[in-house]
Amino acid sequence: MAQKPSIPKGTRDFSPIEVAKRHYIIDTIKEQFQLFGFHPIETPSFENSDTLMGKYGEEGDRLIFKILNSGDYLKKVDDALYDSKDSTKMTSKISEKALRYDLTVPFARYVVQHQNEIDFPFKRYQIQPVWRADRPQKGRFREFFQCDADVVGSKSLWQEVDFIQLYDSVFSKLKLDGVTIKMNNRKILSGIAEVIGASDKLIDFTVALDKLDKIGEEGVKKEMLSKGISEDAITKVQPLFNFEGNTTEKINKLKDLLNSSEEGMQGVKELEFIVKAIQTIPLQCATLDLDVTLARGLNYYTGAIFEVAAPENVKMGSIGGGGRYDDLTGIFGLKNVSGVGVSFGLDRIYLVLEELDLFPETVAPVTKALFINFGEAEALYSLKAINKLRKEGILAELYPDATKMKKQMNYANKKGAKYVILAGDSELKNETFTVKNMESGTQNEMNFDELKALL
Amino acid sequence: MAQKPSIPKGTRDFSPIEVAKRHYIIDTIKEQFQLFGFHPIETPSFENSDTLMGKYGEEGDRLIFKILNSGDYLKKVDDALYDSKDSTKMTSKISEKALRYDLTVPFARYVVQHQNEIDFPFKRYQIQPVWRADRPQKGRFREFFQCDADVVGSKSLWQEVDFIQLYDSVFSKLKLDGVTIKMNNRKILSGIAEVIGASDKLIDFTVALDKLDKIGEEGVKKEMLSKGISEDAITKVQPLFNFEGNTTEKINKLKDLLNSSEEGMQGVKELEFIVKAIQTIPLQCATLDLDVTLARGLNYYTGAIFEVAAPENVKMGSIGGGGRYDDLTGIFGLKNVSGVGVSFGLDRIYLVLEELDLFPETVAPVTKALFINFGEAEALYSLKAINKLRKEGILAELYPDATKMKKQMNYANKKGAKYVILAGDSELKNETFTVKNMESGTQNEMNFDELKALL
Repeated sequence: MAQKPSIPKGTRDFSPIEVAKRHYIIDTIKEQFQLFGFHPIETPSFENSDTLMGKYGEEGDRLIFKILNSGDYLKKVDDALYDSKDSTKMTSKISEKALRYDLTVPFARYVVQHQNEIDFPFKRYQIQPVWRADRPQKGRFREFFQCDADVVGSKSLWQEVDFIQLYDSVFSKLKLDGVTIKMNNRKILSGIAEVIGASDKLIDFTVALDKLDKIGEEGVKKEMLSKGISEDAITKVQPLFNFEGNTTEKINKLKDLLNSSEEGMQGVKELEFIVKAIQTIPLQCATLDLDVTLARGLNYYTGAIFEVAAPENVKMGSIGGGGRYDDLTGIFGLKNVSGVGVSFGLDRIYLVLEELDLFPETVAPVTKALFINFGEAEALYSLKAINKLRKEGILAELYPDATKMKKQMNYANKKGAKYVILAGDSELKNETFTVKNMESGTQNEMNFDELKALL
Repeated sequence: MAQKPSIPKGTRDFSPIEVAKRHYIIDTIKEQFQLFGFHPIETPSFENSDTLMGKYGEEGDRLIFKILNSGDYLKKVDDALYDSKDSTKMTSKISEKALRYDLTVPFARYVVQHQNEIDFPFKRYQIQPVWRADRPQKGRFREFFQCDADVVGSKSLWQEVDFIQLYDSVFSKLKLDGVTIKMNNRKILSGIAEVIGASDKLIDFTVALDKLDKIGEEGVKKEMLSKGISEDAITKVQPLFNFEGNTTEKINKLKDLLNSSEEGMQGVKELEFIVKAIQTIPLQCATLDLDVTLARGLNYYTGAIFEVAAPENVKMGSIGGGGRYDDLTGIFGLKNVSGVGVSFGLDRIYLVLEELDLFPETVAPVTKALFINFGEAEALYSLKAINKLRKEGILAELYPDATKMKKQMNYANKKGAKYVILAGDSELKNETFTVKNMESGTQNEMNFDELKALL
């Protein structure tokens, strides 16, 4: 006997119930994307390597899955290079395509390639898998879906407001109360670094500050010192270490701290605009909070930065994130296209809904009526009824084989069928059906119209 | 300026309207799959190479996209092999994973791997992309979706009946009248070869017969002769060259032709069972026809063979196909699992619907109300209304920037917005909205409740 087959590490098979739950989340997100005026695009699973390489840093380049050229791919490699047996150099000769690593770079490529067909501002969403040759671990996969929505072609802050509303709408629809939408602004981080005279150390500073949760105030200060940030500077940012209060209070603190930095004050102004709008149009189930330690995608974001935290009672990393970027398409030669976007973390949202038992009972369609198979004539009689029921949108099925009753009932049970329908000799004669309610166990004989009405 | 980016040949970007149309088809198929009691599974985009290699013949092996191993993949290649510079031998050393080539082999792998979690008969559907390194040409892509439904674990012919009904239901929902579901049976082909004493030439015989459409009776006869099939044998199958009539007449002809072949008569019996059932439960929009020249997947199918032809007025190859196979999972060591399945050709169905103009006008969600942006206070006032409208499921949007009216109206036009809503100074004062019907051009001032009712 052949070895039991398996799948590559870091990948997953999804069973029917898992597919149903995943699509419940995806469909909910999609519905809200559409309601907010976003349009779907889809891009190929693999791109030309030069579209992807160099866009995610050195580490990213290593984690991109490369596709081997077809045919006699070694023939084109010149001997000198071949003799070096250098994997990195060989790759670019024997592989011209690579699996997409995220949806952002393909989106940028799409915008540039199709710029003449697009009406800006362009609101697009995209829900597709991406692949990363990451070391697999709990909750980290080599194939996973990203769900992104972006607007490009406008700098309006109303879009940030809209994205916060969008997050709130999606999580409301998923009945996931208590998420926190954490917001920061790249300009505030720059401003802080500026006022403490450490603009050249912005990255070191924010990387350290980002660890406040994990290593505490003393740990952060120690790291900052070790990176050459002065005691004096650290004293100036003391308010950040106990950055408490509601959003209005936090904004006032930031105004005090940053009043000497033009860029910092611009960041505060942007935050304030968004906060005030959200105060006027309150969220349904989420809370907007300011978090000055938030530094995700710092190389990338130029304005607002978002991160969504799961409800406090669930231990889980962020379930969404995003921000404003000023030059998405520059890498492909189209300058000055500002954009802002958010992403939903499908796998983590799945785990949260699972943990909080928030998937609706009806997430997967269930057989309403399973017809027992008693033989050829009876099956044909049943199939006629099934055909009519399906036209009414009722999920009805015939057990395919005229096997033992017990086996068929067992199957009905496992499929979770609500009703089992028996149509044997006498029912055929009477033009009726005997209907067994699988929950109560009661049985009733009825004609087709009564059956249809019941189901 | 960077070079304008592009995508690999044989792949496609899908614009919003294309995505909407594709998902209209996919969702219709999915809905019917579910109504017929099929459950979805999803498998990883790439499989271990040994799961795929050797399953599709030599040509298939060549067309499978292989993924390069990560890291210093050349290090593991021993010098002797490396020095041979043999691409084929190298591939198995530097690539362990490959993109799936179809959904059938991954499904077989899934069934074997998860056999203990599955209740048989297992009715699964799967709608995912597959990849083939085929030479791209009109209508043939390197990445495309397959939409498959299969039942494994039962030999019941009721399933063949159900699949014909399923085809009919899907095409009815798509309003695609006039498709023909062509059916044959592997046993009939074997039987014909048997009665003419050419059982050893079954493949040659069917390959020639399959060309009847293209090269005509004389061409087929010539090819058969050239393959060593005798004049005498060809005379015996003369009825196949003018195989006209309704399904009942055709079955009678086959009974005459095949009465000396046990296997052939078994095939006729199976066809007859299916035909009679479909006569009792008539199809809505499709026609079932027998086509003894149909020989698709002959290496594979063991019973019924299906192929769906587009309506006669459309020039298009088959838009679906399938059949019965007796040993799907044998390749992975699980014997005696009979299955039957069908597939829908998404790309071709798309082209047919496009040609016949059958996509509904509402295939893509359209902005119902675009609110003009007159500045901060007005935008906030509008956004409050938008927020309430969205809660009612109404697609409403704010133009993000307070730019020239003309630009905003232009955008509304391009987005196909039904109504443009103007809320300036006086509307804010009156707590009203001026609503412009973009079709009729009429304008009306109304309060929020009236607006909501209108939309």
